[in-house]
Amino acid sequence: MKKVAIGVDIGGTNIRLGIVGPDGKVHDRVSFLTAGLGRARLLSRLVRHISILRKLAAKKGWKTAGAGVGAPGPIDVERGFVYFFPNIPGWKDTPLKALLKKRLGMPVAVDNDANALALGEFFFGAGRGAKNIVVLTLGTGVGGGIILDGKLFHGHAYSAAEIGHLVINENGPRCGCGNRGCLETYVGNGYFVREAQRRLRAGQKSVLRQWTARAGQKLTPLLAARAARARDAFAVGLWRETAGHLASALAGLANVLNPERIVLGGGIAQNGAVLFGPLRAAFRKKAFSVATHSAKIVPAALGLDAGVAGAGALVYARQGRGD
Amino acid sequence: MKKVAIGVDIGGTNIRLGIVGPDGKVHDRVSFLTAGLGRARLLSRLVRHISILRKLAAKKGWKTAGAGVGAPGPIDVERGFVYFFPNIPGWKDTPLKALLKKRLGMPVAVDNDANALALGEFFFGAGRGAKNIVVLTLGTGVGGGIILDGKLFHGHAYSAAEIGHLVINENGPRCGCGNRGCLETYVGNGYFVREAQRRLRAGQKSVLRQWTARAGQKLTPLLAARAARARDAFAVGLWRETAGHLASALAGLANVLNPERIVLGGGIAQNGAVLFGPLRAAFRKKAFSVATHSAKIVPAALGLDAGVAGAGALVYARQGRGD
Repeated sequence: MKKVAIGVDIGGTNIRLGIVGPDGKVHDRVSFLTAGLGRARLLSRLVRHISILRKLAAKKGWKTAGAGVGAPGPIDVERGFVYFFPNIPGWKDTPLKALLKKRLGMPVAVDNDANALALGEFFFGAGRGAKNIVVLTLGTGVGGGIILDGKLFHGHAYSAAEIGHLVINENGPRCGCGNRGCLETYVGNGYFVREAQRRLRAGQKSVLRQWTARAGQKLTPLLAARAARARDAFAVGLWRETAGHLASALAGLANVLNPERIVLGGGIAQNGAVLFGPLRAAFRKKAFSVATHSAKIVPAALGLDAGVAGAGALVYARQGRGD
Repeated sequence: MKKVAIGVDIGGTNIRLGIVGPDGKVHDRVSFLTAGLGRARLLSRLVRHISILRKLAAKKGWKTAGAGVGAPGPIDVERGFVYFFPNIPGWKDTPLKALLKKRLGMPVAVDNDANALALGEFFFGAGRGAKNIVVLTLGTGVGGGIILDGKLFHGHAYSAAEIGHLVINENGPRCGCGNRGCLETYVGNGYFVREAQRRLRAGQKSVLRQWTARAGQKLTPLLAARAARARDAFAVGLWRETAGHLASALAGLANVLNPERIVLGGGIAQNGAVLFGPLRAAFRKKAFSVATHSAKIVPAALGLDAGVAGAGALVYARQGRGD
């Protein structure tokens, strides 16, 4: 009998669920909005949706091995205990795993969403077949997950893998975390756009000036990538600098962890050669040669299903990957 | 019957050996100069000294479980294969473990000296009782070793833990490794002394000016520490800056690895509160609060025996720590 997991990706905006096969394929996706639901109603809705998916799985002849939850905040992974969610009120000190387990009567695994995502890429995506990988998600912030010797590495108090808060310039701009010059202050979406706008205002030339003059056309990393592909020198330069900042952090990381693969996901990373070309070149220049020979830098593979598939992977990590 | 290990610390200047008890105590130290010995003669001498120590141990009623070697260069730890030693010619591609094992007829473990040192602190010194620790040695360069879940972490190609090559300022001075602004360029002995001299030449006031005017009295980190303890503002400032650079690297490291303890050894770290006071304060400001709550920053405990004890620890790590 095929074993499956139910993956639950709790986000600040949407909650997504799905049946995750042992190959990482997501079936029967459902989702609902996070906003306006208190903790009790959100929990009830989670239980209801997980139960429905479990029944759907049973109808297909699949046995549900458990539910995995990726949650947007710090978690005591052993106890499945939520300390708080920065962007969803009302979850302070919630024993999420115990609550779900009791109401579902099946194994439940909880981890933070960045770790779940990393595990998903490791099991099903761009990290397959490697033993030591580092996964970065380049979005508004920079999240990360680290797999060492085939297992998620959590650190002493489950707060490891805050890769966005590697310092790349101790004299750099103030970061939201209170420190200066963290990677996140240089490669987040916000920084990219603000920096581009600042330079355009300062009079630098670029097709982006014309493109964003149209109503409703905002300057985004995606638009800047299109400009770079059209050989706009301004946009090429922006991407080369982003790649350089990222390479500084990845060089330090590779010198310290000597990983086999570095997987980059999230908005900024979805721009193909515009980022990966200069990034790989800068990384080779900055890191030790043993480290660069070991570590291939590759784009994430799971796309929009990454959150749910990663949450499902938490179940497989606990149970072995039997099918 | 008490089991012991023989520890061998190969350095660019001296080779030191000793019997290492299961408590980390070093007995019957011997040492000889590295210079002038080719590989063959050095190997023969190693074998002879190890054999003598083994007989000495037997006379005391101790059983020698094996020999551990800390070596000053990159090693394939599984095979005990030396790629090369940067500071000792003639060792390119040497199957050190196999050669010693054959001639000694006992188990041999080989690792690089920084990893051996870290394992020594973990088993016998300032890392005792912790599961996840990071060890830095602040000397001419900055070396390191990482223990995760109670085991030395080597990375994909045995080149992990090059903590001196975490980038703390991507626009910083050129490092010997080819990159810019690595930690090592800011906290090595050489940088410390050059920076102090530069400032004194530029006219800054300090008691160090008078102290180093005496014949034979060189400016060293030790002397600067003495001046800082005598409340010399110039020296206090130098140490505060050194602490700040170190804290930038440790903050990034703690955010990524969330270790339980950070152990600092080597010359720069032997200056007590002059370094550790401002270092702990800066670390608390720069790292995540979960990370700073987890990670105590402590001085290394093994002192001059650290190399030999750490090499012995390589044997205990392989064999369990039975006595």
